[in-house]
Amino acid sequence: MGLDLNITIVGLGLIGGSYALALRELNPKKLYAVDIDEDTIKLGEERGIIDKGFLSPEIPLKESDLVIVCIYPKSIKKFIKDNMDNFKSGAVITDTVGIKKDFAQDINSILREDIDFIFGHPMAGREFTGLGYASKEIFKGANYIIIPTERNKKENIRLIENIAKDMGFKHIEKVSVEKHDEVIGFVSQLPHVIAVSLVNSDNLEVDTGKFTGDSYRDLTRIARINTKLWTELFIGNRKNLINHIERFEKNIADIKHALINEDTEALGNILNRASKKREEMS
Amino acid sequence: MGLDLNITIVGLGLIGGSYALALRELNPKKLYAVDIDEDTIKLGEERGIIDKGFLSPEIPLKESDLVIVCIYPKSIKKFIKDNMDNFKSGAVITDTVGIKKDFAQDINSILREDIDFIFGHPMAGREFTGLGYASKEIFKGANYIIIPTERNKKENIRLIENIAKDMGFKHIEKVSVEKHDEVIGFVSQLPHVIAVSLVNSDNLEVDTGKFTGDSYRDLTRIARINTKLWTELFIGNRKNLINHIERFEKNIADIKHALINEDTEALGNILNRASKKREEMS
Repeated sequence: MGLDLNITIVGLGLIGGSYALALRELNPKKLYAVDIDEDTIKLGEERGIIDKGFLSPEIPLKESDLVIVCIYPKSIKKFIKDNMDNFKSGAVITDTVGIKKDFAQDINSILREDIDFIFGHPMAGREFTGLGYASKEIFKGANYIIIPTERNKKENIRLIENIAKDMGFKHIEKVSVEKHDEVIGFVSQLPHVIAVSLVNSDNLEVDTGKFTGDSYRDLTRIARINTKLWTELFIGNRKNLINHIERFEKNIADIKHALINEDTEALGNILNRASKKREEMS
Repeated sequence: MGLDLNITIVGLGLIGGSYALALRELNPKKLYAVDIDEDTIKLGEERGIIDKGFLSPEIPLKESDLVIVCIYPKSIKKFIKDNMDNFKSGAVITDTVGIKKDFAQDINSILREDIDFIFGHPMAGREFTGLGYASKEIFKGANYIIIPTERNKKENIRLIENIAKDMGFKHIEKVSVEKHDEVIGFVSQLPHVIAVSLVNSDNLEVDTGKFTGDSYRDLTRIARINTKLWTELFIGNRKNLINHIERFEKNIADIKHALINEDTEALGNILNRASKKREEMS
C-alpha cells in the first residue's frame, strides 16, 4: 500500500523538508523536490528524504500529480506563472502560506483550467529555518486548515484532507479565505507581535535569562522570528492584525486600570474569565 | 552523606510538595510538613514524600533547623507572628514568595533576633495547584533568586544557596529586594498579564483550539492562572508592573503604527531587534 502519486515539493526548507519526511512514510510513487540551493538538494538526496532533487522545475512538474509549494508567499505567484506550461494536466497544487485572501485571488486568476489549487495551512513550524531542522514530528497532533475556493473539485479537497490525516494532523478545519485570515491574525500573528514586543520591552540591565521562569521563555520563544517571512505576512494581513492588536490593547489597558485603581475585584474577574476560557480550549 | 538538618515545609501544595520531593533526595535528618488539610498530610505521609505531617506547627518547628514557608504571601506574616515562640534558636527560615519589598520589611520587623530569614524565589511553577502535581523536576535547570537583607548571616545565605544547587537549580542570582521586584514584574508578572489579555481578546466565534499552532498554546498556557495568588502578587507589585505594562504598550503601538503606515522597513527593524535579543538570551 502506498500513495499512488508522484509528488514534487517546491522549496526544501524547514516546512518543505518536514513535508517530505512525513510524506515518505506514506510511500508515494516518487517524491521529488525543487530548490534553488544545490547543497540542500544534495542533502535531501543523501539522507533519502527525497528520491531526486532538481534546480529546474520542468522535469519533476511534468510528472507530478501533486505539487506542494513551500516557498515564500510572494515567490509562489511568480513560480506558478513561470511554470504554467510545466504542470501535468489534472495536477493538484497545494501550499502552506500563512495568509490567503489576496494570495488565493492572485493565484486563481492566473491558473490553467485543468489544474486545481487547494489552499492549505498546516499550523506547525519551528523558530529555526532550513532543511537541517525539518522533522515529520512537527505535524503530529497539529491543526490543519483547508481553505476551499469555488473552483476546487471535491475529490481534490478530499485528497488533501486524507493526506493531512495520514501525515498525523489531528484536526482538519475548512474555512473561507476571509475567516482564515481573521483567525490566523489572532492565533498566529498576534502572538508573534506580542512575543516581539515583550522582548523589545526588556530594559532591566540584568542578564535576563538568569531570572526567567518557563513563562517568559514560553512567551518569547517565537520572538526568534524569520523577519522576511513575518514582515510579509503581517503587512499582507494588516487590517485583521490591527483589529486584533487593538482588542488586545484594550484588554491590557483594563488590567492596567484595575492595578492603578487597586481594584482587586475587577482584576480577579479578568483573571477568572481568562482562566476559565483557557481551561475550556480544546 | 546527607543534609544534617531537620526541615519543616509549611504548606504542602504544588511548590511545598515539589520542595519536599527534591529535598528527599538530599537525605535530611527529618523532613516534616505542616498543612491545614488533613488529607494532604496523609497523602504526603503515605507516599513517603515527608517523614511526618502536622496540622499544628509547634512540634515540628521546635525541632527544625530549616523552615521553608510555601503558603500564600499574606498568610506568611501571620504564620511567623503566631509561631514566633515555636522556632528553634538559630533556625533559618526561607520562602518562595514572588514579591519581596514590603514583604521582607514586614517579616524583618517582627522576627526574633536569633532567627534568620533568607528570602528566596525559585523561578519554577506549574499552571496547576496542589500536592498531586508536585514534582522535583520543576526545579531542574531552573533559576533561583536569593534576596539578601542586612540582618542575614553569610553562612545562612550560603546554606540556602548550596541546597538550591543540590536541588538542581542551574543559576543562583543575588539581588536587592527592589531589583528583585522590578525584574520579577517583567519576567514573570508581565507575561501573566499578557497571557490573560490574549485569551480575553478571543472573539473569533470558532473553536479556537482547532486553529491554533504551538505559538498560541505557549503564549496562553499560563492564562490558566491561580487568581487568588496572582491578584495578590500583581497588586503588591503594581508600581513596577504598571511601568512594565506601559513600556510593553509602547512597543505594541510601534508595531501597530508600522502596520498602519505599511512601513515594511520599520517593521523589519523591530522584528530584527527582538530576534537578535532573544537569540542572545542565556
